[in-house]
Amino acid sequence: MATILVLNGPNLNLLGTREPELYGADTLESINQRLSQQASAAGHHLLMLQSNAEYEIIDRIHDAKKEGVNYILFNPAAFTHTSIAIRDALLGVAIPFIEIHISNVYRREGFRQKSYFSDIAEGVICGLGPQGYELALKAALNHIS
Amino acid sequence: MATILVLNGPNLNLLGTREPELYGADTLESINQRLSQQASAAGHHLLMLQSNAEYEIIDRIHDAKKEGVNYILFNPAAFTHTSIAIRDALLGVAIPFIEIHISNVYRREGFRQKSYFSDIAEGVICGLGPQGYELALKAALNHIS
Amino acid sequence: MATILVLNGPNLNLLGTREPELYGADTLESINQRLSQQASAAGHHLLMLQSNAEYEIIDRIHDAKKEGVNYILFNPAAFTHTSIAIRDALLGVAIPFIEIHISNVYRREGFRQKSYFSDIAEGVICGLGPQGYELALKAALNHIS
Amino acid sequence: MATILVLNGPNLNLLGTREPELYGADTLESINQRLSQQASAAGHHLLMLQSNAEYEIIDRIHDAKKEGVNYILFNPAAFTHTSIAIRDALLGVAIPFIEIHISNVYRREGFRQKSYFSDIAEGVICGLGPQGYELALKAALNHIS
Amino acid sequence: MATILVLNGPNLNLLGTREPELYGADTLESINQRLSQQASAAGHHLLMLQSNAEYEIIDRIHDAKKEGVNYILFNPAAFTHTSIAIRDALLGVAIPFIEIHISNVYRREGFRQKSYFSDIAEGVICGLGPQGYELALKAALNHIS
Amino acid sequence: MATILVLNGPNLNLLGTREPELYGADTLESINQRLSQQASAAGHHLLMLQSNAEYEIIDRIHDAKKEGVNYILFNPAAFTHTSIAIRDALLGVAIPFIEIHISNVYRREGFRQKSYFSDIAEGVICGLGPQGYELALKAALNHIS
Amino acid sequence: MATILVLNGPNLNLLGTREPELYGADTLESINQRLSQQASAAGHHLLMLQSNAEYEIIDRIHDAKKEGVNYILFNPAAFTHTSIAIRDALLGVAIPFIEIHISNVYRREGFRQKSYFSDIAEGVICGLGPQGYELALKAALNHIS
Amino acid sequence: MATILVLNGPNLNLLGTREPELYGADTLESINQRLSQQASAAGHHLLMLQSNAEYEIIDRIHDAKKEGVNYILFNPAAFTHTSIAIRDALLGVAIPFIEIHISNVYRREGFRQKSYFSDIAEGVICGLGPQGYELALKAALNHIS
Amino acid sequence: MATILVLNGPNLNLLGTREPELYGADTLESINQRLSQQASAAGHHLLMLQSNAEYEIIDRIHDAKKEGVNYILFNPAAFTHTSIAIRDALLGVAIPFIEIHISNVYRREGFRQKSYFSDIAEGVICGLGPQGYELALKAALNHIS
Amino acid sequence: MATILVLNGPNLNLLGTREPELYGADTLESINQRLSQQASAAGHHLLMLQSNAEYEIIDRIHDAKKEGVNYILFNPAAFTHTSIAIRDALLGVAIPFIEIHISNVYRREGFRQKSYFSDIAEGVICGLGPQGYELALKAALNHIS
Amino acid sequence: MATILVLNGPNLNLLGTREPELYGADTLESINQRLSQQASAAGHHLLMLQSNAEYEIIDRIHDAKKEGVNYILFNPAAFTHTSIAIRDALLGVAIPFIEIHISNVYRREGFRQKSYFSDIAEGVICGLGPQGYELALKAALNHIS
Amino acid sequence: MATILVLNGPNLNLLGTREPELYGADTLESINQRLSQQASAAGHHLLMLQSNAEYEIIDRIHDAKKEGVNYILFNPAAFTHTSIAIRDALLGVAIPFIEIHISNVYRREGFRQKSYFSDIAEGVICGLGPQGYELALKAALNHIS
Repeated sequence: MATILVLNGPNLNLLGTREPELYGADTLESINQRLSQQASAAGHHLLMLQSNAEYEIIDRIHDAKKEGVNYILFNPAAFTHTSIAIRDALLGVAIPFIEIHISNVYRREGFRQKSYFSDIAEGVICGLGPQGYELALKAALNHIS
Repeated sequence: MATILVLNGPNLNLLGTREPELYGADTLESINQRLSQQASAAGHHLLMLQSNAEYEIIDRIHDAKKEGVNYILFNPAAFTHTSIAIRDALLGVAIPFIEIHISNVYRREGFRQKSYFSDIAEGVICGLGPQGYELALKAALNHIS
Repeated sequence: MATILVLNGPNLNLLGTREPELYGADTLESINQRLSQQASAAGHHLLMLQSNAEYEIIDRIHDAKKEGVNYILFNPAAFTHTSIAIRDALLGVAIPFIEIHISNVYRREGFRQKSYFSDIAEGVICGLGPQGYELALKAALNHIS
Repeated sequence: MATILVLNGPNLNLLGTREPELYGADTLESINQRLSQQASAAGHHLLMLQSNAEYEIIDRIHDAKKEGVNYILFNPAAFTHTSIAIRDALLGVAIPFIEIHISNVYRREGFRQKSYFSDIAEGVICGLGPQGYELALKAALNHIS
Repeated sequence: MATILVLNGPNLNLLGTREPELYGADTLESINQRLSQQASAAGHHLLMLQSNAEYEIIDRIHDAKKEGVNYILFNPAAFTHTSIAIRDALLGVAIPFIEIHISNVYRREGFRQKSYFSDIAEGVICGLGPQGYELALKAALNHIS
Repeated sequence: MATILVLNGPNLNLLGTREPELYGADTLESINQRLSQQASAAGHHLLMLQSNAEYEIIDRIHDAKKEGVNYILFNPAAFTHTSIAIRDALLGVAIPFIEIHISNVYRREGFRQKSYFSDIAEGVICGLGPQGYELALKAALNHIS
Repeated sequence: MATILVLNGPNLNLLGTREPELYGADTLESINQRLSQQASAAGHHLLMLQSNAEYEIIDRIHDAKKEGVNYILFNPAAFTHTSIAIRDALLGVAIPFIEIHISNVYRREGFRQKSYFSDIAEGVICGLGPQGYELALKAALNHIS
Repeated sequence: MATILVLNGPNLNLLGTREPELYGADTLESINQRLSQQASAAGHHLLMLQSNAEYEIIDRIHDAKKEGVNYILFNPAAFTHTSIAIRDALLGVAIPFIEIHISNVYRREGFRQKSYFSDIAEGVICGLGPQGYELALKAALNHIS
Repeated sequence: MATILVLNGPNLNLLGTREPELYGADTLESINQRLSQQASAAGHHLLMLQSNAEYEIIDRIHDAKKEGVNYILFNPAAFTHTSIAIRDALLGVAIPFIEIHISNVYRREGFRQKSYFSDIAEGVICGLGPQGYELALKAALNHIS
Repeated sequence: MATILVLNGPNLNLLGTREPELYGADTLESINQRLSQQASAAGHHLLMLQSNAEYEIIDRIHDAKKEGVNYILFNPAAFTHTSIAIRDALLGVAIPFIEIHISNVYRREGFRQKSYFSDIAEGVICGLGPQGYELALKAALNHIS
Repeated sequence: MATILVLNGPNLNLLGTREPELYGADTLESINQRLSQQASAAGHHLLMLQSNAEYEIIDRIHDAKKEGVNYILFNPAAFTHTSIAIRDALLGVAIPFIEIHISNVYRREGFRQKSYFSDIAEGVICGLGPQGYELALKAALNHIS
Repeated sequence: MATILVLNGPNLNLLGTREPELYGADTLESINQRLSQQASAAGHHLLMLQSNAEYEIIDRIHDAKKEGVNYILFNPAAFTHTSIAIRDALLGVAIPFIEIHISNVYRREGFRQKSYFSDIAEGVICGLGPQGYELALKAALNHIS
């Protein structure tokens, strides 16, 4: 049985209400519920955190190491483009992770084209909506087993 | 009666002591007091937050939506140039806001010329000292009424 | 009693008819009228010039020095991004001024992001519509008194 | 019957004498004469202005709106690369226009590669010599009819 | 029953032998076989093309329109960074597609960071190995049904 | 009697169906027919090729030299921005040509602003729709006679 | 007797476990202990903070001013490259400080070459391992006495 | 006897009063007087124009051709960095000229480092104060004789 | 006995007629003949391909692997600057190769300064005319023996 | 007993007289004397060279290899930003070294931000005045022992 | 009586033979002779050095300080664009100097547009041939007296 | 009988010991010996200089002109990227030369991609090891005879 951490960055608590033309009407709660079921069905355990605070995400990553987390699914949201500190936390714990974006960032502002995570991630899934989390979990489970 | 939120970013708690040649001798407290009186006189209500923490500002903006805040006056200070997460919070709640800078950022370091807020703000007031808040409040009140 | 010069750059004579979704339906005449009343009410005198010719604006600034003008409110319009000659005129006479833009230039073409005036202005008001002139006049009057 | 304005920017009064290896031996007068005949033959009316003064071109464009000009043929010459004010005038009056260059600007100095007009023009004709005006007039007449 | 086209760009015929530390030991044949089974199981039909010739890919996309292809899974390989012609073909037929990369292009040469497809794709899956095709097919099938 | 080659690059076979808001409803066939009539009427001969393959265009240009083609009308479409090989073919045969674009490329993506042909073309006609070919043919015929 | 503040930024709590080939096997605790002894031996007092939260570092700097801290030794870690807010805090309190990096940032990713602190620091020590703190403390003590 | 034209660009009418720490206390009148004497002493004739209007300078250059002016001494002031139209006028008449700057432009704002004249001037004299005109006149007279 | 492949990119079939001031009067046929003799004399075997089609060059490189080619001499011509697909083919087969240019590309257009091959080639010979092939063959033979 | 070479680049012979607000009043002689005492006290030997000639520094580094120098303390002064030849000499002999700057180069001209040595140095000490040499020697001695 | 040093950088010993279309047929010897006469006539003393070695120029500048040289006329030739060490020498001795270029560097390669001296020189004279030295000497003598 | 000068730049005296994985185990002496034999065998004379001093290389090039040297083989090593003075020396004497690099500079640091010699060289040979000199000599001898 593996432990997988689903990390969501700033403003993703607004999912379902925030700019629905970009992000859809799904809430983070319902996404997380589906992911939990998918993980349980495969005999694995899911941990979750959404935070608007960079330091909470860093601390959570540090703790993940201590808890033996096997894989991280990470939607860094706006921190994608600004947080070298979270990058360093991920480098520091060396847990494999997939970077996920709900919207297609390549269609948006220029500053959203640069990620501090893509080159150290296992892979990136972008623009496929909330379904992106499920595909990433599938990939993580394949990787683990 | 409208509700207006006055948001001040990092280090603005130092106003009055910090680099007075740039920022003047006015304290944030006295500025806020004058703004409250100006709002009350017009029959409106003022909420305030100064924070050095990006996440507190994001959370405050999320709450503003729930509380029905009508307008935000925002001096993002150093976050002007670095916080895509606050930008996303403002996009997420879609409350109109004016960006304010006490000092003339165009006379300062190159990295202060880039704002993550100006293109999504209603307008920008910059370099006019603490008076900038009062002018912005006046514009907000005109906008609301 | 102070003398204040309101300078408007190229194409602002079209105000009210030109791209109303960007600039509103107010004419320059009505804006100037309101500003005159605001100045008179405060016991001050207003001078005005709108010109499509760079040299007329330069000459007007030179004359302002001779006439003892105390403050300039300046909407440089398209000259914002191209006229070093007007910049030099303002540096030459050393009269304090506020830079005003009716529309939010930060939402527009990349070449509108660069101003030859902002770093030598007292301050900048941008994106608040015709009301921007009135706020600037208020700031100028505060400065003078 | 439509009215078409042929606008020529700075130094084009030198045509025929100026750098003939670049611009040919045709004078502006003879070009204009041929264009007038071409327009008359099609039952339309031609107006013309060549000016070395940016403000005269702006004023002419403003007037064109009042006179009901249907189409503009515009060789902005050196103003191609520097005049945002004329760009704004054309945006302000919203009259369709074709941008014309006699010489092939793509073979010349780097600063001649940037145009403030191409993206708001109907189209661009460049490098085909004085004949470019006649082709543009043909296109304008097709457009109008 | 939907028809899905799996398009593979240049050098992907070498899969299994080419730089296995980057691309793995799976051959394109075995990948395609698995995809066919996955599609059949869901009651859909799969078409396939791998080509080293840009024009064959363009022609195949044009034909896809005529054949009523519902979705394209596209690994453009080296053409990702160079082929505006294929981009235009995809824009021309307006069939939704997912961009797939087997290796994590963000860890490689700078010129591999730029894609002519990402901003017009439904989404992008990158760095997850041959499994990326299966995840993309899953997303496509969800999209169609 | 002169021979003129009309060369059309990738995806132009889709004309009439592809993105009609950009390219109009005219088909390449009907455009070519009109051009043939225009050429015949002037006593000249027209050759045509549309190809999605860069090498076919290069080969056609090489052959043009052998056949004594006097002038080329060339719409390089997406190859405008990517094909140095076609540029070299045109330099190699030294046949004069006009570059044509149906849509106004200056209003489109940044990568469409760069042409590998404009600086070696006789001239450029852009944004005037299918009519651009006819104007170019007119210019070519003037040049030849 | 002087008071010196040793400030350590994000992820430095991982020292000794994180990427030891870059950062060595020393823990922050043992480093701090050695620094305390060095300071005590010289008759001075040491304060310490490591934090993953930008706001805690800002607040700590504000408090340092109130407590009369004479000098700061600062390893900003990932905040080196992103935090204008901490820069502003340091500018606001005007306490002299030395910037320290354990690893040689010049050998690492391009984005680590830019520091928001070096130009306002007294000096910079980089790449000399944990020993860098001791050298910096030595310099600070020389400066104070 | 040769004729030499001394052309001064915008704001140079302010010489003596404008930013004296940059430009000195000499007026343009006194400079011109000294130049006239220097020219007369050498048996030559001097023409002069200072203008804040770009078009007047262009027209003056066109007229210079007709009047047989042999050499131009040109201080383009702010037009140095913006006027391609004056550049084209000078190219059009092909009269040799020396570019003069009173202040050392290399010590000033970045945008003053670019000149549209230096590469087509005979030479450039910069930073030597009003004396620069006299040295240029000396060089011009040497050139002519 | 080794097998060496001589690959020539687009437009090199024009050698001898194309821009002789750049490329000389030698034909590709005569160059290839001399190379064959040089190889035979050393007891080795030469294969040759010139193609204007990128895909043919890619296919030829793939086949070279199967045929046991020991070394490639490659003049990519215009593909030097545009073909990542050929780069990937060469990386995929891992056959050592020398990049050859007949003309000195460093004297030509800026876009010819960038090669997608130089950093993966054994070496580069440039500007020495057709003789460059012979020098490269000599180096290849030294390498093999 | 180790041997340490102290290398000083151009103009450092002026120390004590040159721009004392940047470099202090200490002479190189007195700095070197203090360093010799510090080294002797630790039982080590110090060699020194200051030179304004790049080649002398290169030759000295080559000789250092032959003499078995264990460590180099290097203040490259202006050569920091220009000498790839000295970089290559240091790479060639592979002796560990620390880069030292007396002034804080990060506060100075942009071209002083680039070093050809930092990425190959053990570490960098900058802005701490002449004391920087002593700190570097301390680090070197720690390294050696 | 003042002492003036005339410094000439690398390759200027070739004057008269080197690229005469750029530099003229005058030798350095004859130029120096004329300058000596001009200085003597004004009662001043001239020192001269031409060197191809950067260090000799640095040493000469250091000595100039000791000898009480009042002014330097400096043609840095190729060192203009590369020698920060000479810049530092001039900053170190703080002797006023004029930068001279015989040819018009603005017409030449891009890398010749950047000077490490212009912003610290009194002024610059460029493109006026050997006569530039005489004009500079005249300016220096005016400055001294 | 021709005279050929073999010039080697800084640090090439270390050949055989310096970074052998980059430069091989051959010494400069043995390379030069082989080149001498190759030249003698062809009836020509070889001169040689290796120097770490830029000025010695410049002086040697000046002398080469006087001695009637027919061709130069030049490995500028680190001076490739920094010495405009040597470039000017080569332009000044106008002796044809080939630029040689032992290692493949395209695989190395970014600053090694720029050469001040390639565009004025006859040709460039790079990455083929010491053998590059022999190939260059062969080319030179072909050129001469």
